[in-house]
Amino acid sequence: MNGLLTDLYELTMAAGYFESGKVEEKATFEFTIRRLPAFRNFVLVAGLAQVVEYLQNLSFTEEEIGYLRGLPQFRGASPAFFEYLRSFRFTGDLFAAPEGTPLFSGEPVLCLRAPIIEAQIPETWLLSTITFQTLIASKAARCASAAAGRPVIEFGTRRAHTPDAGVLGARAAYLGGCAGTSNTLAGYRYGIPVSGTAAHSWVMSFACEMEAFRKLQRVMGESTVQLLDTYDPLQGARHAAKLGKPLWGVRLDSGDFLSTSRQVRAILDQAGLHDSRIMASGDLDEYKIRELVRAGAAVDSFGVGTQLAVSADSPVMGAVYKLVELDIQGIKRFTAKYSDEKASVPGAKQVFRAAHRDVIARSGECGNGEALLRPVLLGGELVEPLPTLEQSRERAAAMLAKLPEEIRGLEPAEPWPVIYSRELRELIENTRHNLMQ
Amino acid sequence: MNGLLTDLYELTMAAGYFESGKVEEKATFEFTIRRLPAFRNFVLVAGLAQVVEYLQNLSFTEEEIGYLRGLPQFRGASPAFFEYLRSFRFTGDLFAAPEGTPLFSGEPVLCLRAPIIEAQIPETWLLSTITFQTLIASKAARCASAAAGRPVIEFGTRRAHTPDAGVLGARAAYLGGCAGTSNTLAGYRYGIPVSGTAAHSWVMSFACEMEAFRKLQRVMGESTVQLLDTYDPLQGARHAAKLGKPLWGVRLDSGDFLSTSRQVRAILDQAGLHDSRIMASGDLDEYKIRELVRAGAAVDSFGVGTQLAVSADSPVMGAVYKLVELDIQGIKRFTAKYSDEKASVPGAKQVFRAAHRDVIARSGECGNGEALLRPVLLGGELVEPLPTLEQSRERAAAMLAKLPEEIRGLEPAEPWPVIYSRELRELIENTRHNLMQ
Repeated sequence: MNGLLTDLYELTMAAGYFESGKVEEKATFEFTIRRLPAFRNFVLVAGLAQVVEYLQNLSFTEEEIGYLRGLPQFRGASPAFFEYLRSFRFTGDLFAAPEGTPLFSGEPVLCLRAPIIEAQIPETWLLSTITFQTLIASKAARCASAAAGRPVIEFGTRRAHTPDAGVLGARAAYLGGCAGTSNTLAGYRYGIPVSGTAAHSWVMSFACEMEAFRKLQRVMGESTVQLLDTYDPLQGARHAAKLGKPLWGVRLDSGDFLSTSRQVRAILDQAGLHDSRIMASGDLDEYKIRELVRAGAAVDSFGVGTQLAVSADSPVMGAVYKLVELDIQGIKRFTAKYSDEKASVPGAKQVFRAAHRDVIARSGECGNGEALLRPVLLGGELVEPLPTLEQSRERAAAMLAKLPEEIRGLEPAEPWPVIYSRELRELIENTRHNLMQ
Repeated sequence: MNGLLTDLYELTMAAGYFESGKVEEKATFEFTIRRLPAFRNFVLVAGLAQVVEYLQNLSFTEEEIGYLRGLPQFRGASPAFFEYLRSFRFTGDLFAAPEGTPLFSGEPVLCLRAPIIEAQIPETWLLSTITFQTLIASKAARCASAAAGRPVIEFGTRRAHTPDAGVLGARAAYLGGCAGTSNTLAGYRYGIPVSGTAAHSWVMSFACEMEAFRKLQRVMGESTVQLLDTYDPLQGARHAAKLGKPLWGVRLDSGDFLSTSRQVRAILDQAGLHDSRIMASGDLDEYKIRELVRAGAAVDSFGVGTQLAVSADSPVMGAVYKLVELDIQGIKRFTAKYSDEKASVPGAKQVFRAAHRDVIARSGECGNGEALLRPVLLGGELVEPLPTLEQSRERAAAMLAKLPEEIRGLEPAEPWPVIYSRELRELIENTRHNLMQ
């Protein structure tokens, strides 16, 4: 499964490794955040559960192998290589920072140690999966932080880059601090609280707004959220107030949220609907949420769609998957790339999070603080069950709470200090020296 | 299949429509480009093939229905509603602009006419699918235009928002004018030419670059692309030149492409490798490609990843799916939203593309030029086989060629004129008048 869902060069390299007698060579690849996405002081790692599922199911069907055989790029590959693909399974080790871990520029997210072909093929899939979910979880954390305790609901599937990305985006957003999602499949699949109101089309499909509101209440009962702005939001609020309970609350989807929310609040209060809530949605992001919260808008919860679904202000992250170590018949060789722009750091690593800084060390070193990279798969098998999504969400909240307030804030902050251990610095120098000889 | 892959409110509205006796009411929804994405003079529509597949397979499993039954939002729904979901099928009509059609702000992309529940539920899925593929196809068209005849290969799966989005992104990029993709599954599934080279890890896994190059050639033969910049690109070029043929060419993945490509060209030419090509990749977009082409870089083809995979400078498109018409027991009612920011235009529409402008007319009107919206599904069944991906790609190229050069260019251009027909203007006024009464 999913064997072809990778860049062709991973597979041509696989053929090359095979034909060069490297099937047994062990390689260590590291997934590293080269630099934080723009406008971010941290990222929250997400997507590891999907990576594990992928690695444990990675394989090739007969038909897929037939396709590769017919490509000119494999003309020099032997029948034995295609035989190898037929029984391909991932048998390696995976070390990773648990989902919900905040990380910074230059830090490894995961480390994969396996026979070189098994470690090479997953590159494309891993980069896409971890990068995407990490971007969304990080954006969600910012939105939740700006909302200062008010629930933020993820509403963005319609803007996600494919509906399926919307499902995984909903998962990542929940992990990052959203309180729920509008994506029904994400609720079904991951147990995320789902939330739904009505669209303008609902209101427009009835002869008048009052009728539309009444009919919605009949189905949704106490979960009812009346959408106010199909025609005129204050008129909508008066209609909602007249109908009264059962009612969760109302939603504003356009206009000046600050003044309208206050006017709507007054209308609801006058009708005795003090515990009915006001939700705002429509082109919101963390900055607009913060502004509304600071200005004292009468908004009890926020629906965030577009900006969250694609991490719109920062839709990419500079992450790389680099070979850092080779084990050829028991002899270790460290590898790195020293070209100007795209250098990489040799050797398998560990990250220690102490109270005021992170130390990137060599794997196996002792250090102070929490060791962030933990064994996940050994010999292709899970070391222990993965955390639940709730547990990862709690981890994210707990670890963020330990970081300085400026790092968690929306403005660019002094970077969290990340340094190399002495042993790692020595390894970098020695490897450079060896390579330059 | 895919019944839950939608926003919850589509399903609560479905329950509401059902309980309000609206199962037989026919609704017409329109997918409209509210405004072009930033930095775009046009978009190229893509994703229709996936929409058709979705609509023809849309259904709910027993387990999914059980999940909905347990949600508080459906407390007021009757057993008959869940019975209805059990046999749910899309039986409506779909009119759409064929894939590869360039469209502009305010224009409808597709129009769905069906019993209201069947027309409502697909909203989320349609918006995400069409928007995403349209964004990528449009970005690809810009990259291809900037490359002025040199092939542009889509390399972006690792940056796509999920690996599966990478597959559909590769499809859209090819449709928009890319010459191929690195995504193997996209090649397998859609017949797109696939392209692959080697990564830095390949070179690093050997004791020396020469050996890495030699081994790659043995497998890839005439498809061989040697990656030059693992250590030093000119040294890499000399190694590649020394090995010579078989060789497709070389790839530069970092550095100053302009000067390096010329130096590499000279090295290859000196070795008699005049027909070996130079590919450049690494943080490229349409602007950088244009700059390299204008400056006379010795680059024969471009690999574009990150910027294309998520349409990074413009990762969202303001598209909406709005109810425009109702048919209640044979009586038509036109609907629109007239709130300040988010107005919609009533009635089913047609778009006529004439030589110098588009006219948005009422559906059924006669007009000059090509009628862009065509019947795709009638009664849930395909009217005729969909175009192949190659045909859509040709349509895109042919239709773009007819637009003014500035519209196809990279700089913001005077918008292509889009006007409303007189009949449509009258309908807008009449509907507003009726709604405001």
